[in-house]
Amino acid sequence: MLRQADVDDARIRAAAMLERAGIVLTPDERVQIEVADFGLGDLDRTGLQLITYVNTDRYCAKELVLFARQTCPEHRHPPVGGEPGKMETFRCRWGRVHLFVEGPATGQSTASPPAGSEAYYTVFHELVLVAGDQYTIPPDTRHWFQAGDDGAVVAEFSSMSRDELDVFTDPRIVRVPIVG
Amino acid sequence: MLRQADVDDARIRAAAMLERAGIVLTPDERVQIEVADFGLGDLDRTGLQLITYVNTDRYCAKELVLFARQTCPEHRHPPVGGEPGKMETFRCRWGRVHLFVEGPATGQSTASPPAGSEAYYTVFHELVLVAGDQYTIPPDTRHWFQAGDDGAVVAEFSSMSRDELDVFTDPRIVRVPIVG
Repeated sequence: MLRQADVDDARIRAAAMLERAGIVLTPDERVQIEVADFGLGDLDRTGLQLITYVNTDRYCAKELVLFARQTCPEHRHPPVGGEPGKMETFRCRWGRVHLFVEGPATGQSTASPPAGSEAYYTVFHELVLVAGDQYTIPPDTRHWFQAGDDGAVVAEFSSMSRDELDVFTDPRIVRVPIVG
Repeated sequence: MLRQADVDDARIRAAAMLERAGIVLTPDERVQIEVADFGLGDLDRTGLQLITYVNTDRYCAKELVLFARQTCPEHRHPPVGGEPGKMETFRCRWGRVHLFVEGPATGQSTASPPAGSEAYYTVFHELVLVAGDQYTIPPDTRHWFQAGDDGAVVAEFSSMSRDELDVFTDPRIVRVPIVG
């Protein structure tokens, strides 16, 4: 369980990274940055900060912030109501992000699953994205991502987002957005 | 008809504005910036520069660049194939944009239709967006927009984009993307 002080601290750090990346938030948005620890209580290693600009039944846009070496754990977006699962395009705005998707393992990487959670990371086809690079993840495809040593700011463009339907490989995870 | 030299010049200016707004493009993207004069041959007054990051049947994301006081002329996105028209969210990243949509006229503005084209501007409900502000335009709604005195950089998140189906109020307009 995240304490309010942890949420506040993560918001301040995320807002500073967004500002450094040249991304302007309104004051209202700054205090609404979502801080997710995925129920593991280890935010700096497994966690994600994000702001959702718009989420309709037709499209969604977010900004994701990852602290240095912070990992968003492996998950997929399953089909729902006869529609294919969420499809998403990640575009790195600042820093570096190591994105792992299904496909042939790409070998040596400076990124690796959080210690103690290795069993819940099963896909190792790596894309390294720096500012200006982007990659589109097909629906229902397992993926996870980790920031480089300076953290990362990543724009996400996608079909409608339904975080509560995400399927995580790690059964301990509960995707409860913490909006303190 | 835009000359190649005009296109090249507009691309260089647009790329500089994106850079100033903190938005990183790849070298490939920089030379593919779309320059649209809408067939009116008066780019600095009626025109738009843009880069499309992704456009699928599920969602689309672009970055729009407007030079100082440049206007994107009035148009709407009609229904197509049983689906409602394109829905789009504008988020100002840098500068200021005056967005006009259907609704009660809001009165006094520092923006006005390009001289000589007044007849083709019919909606005057104004939203002024500065960095961090956003507004979602419903499907099939007439709208036009003009940058403030320093120009503007605007992110556009939307459903699938089919520019060739846009309906412009000005019958002289041909929405031919010029990718020189």
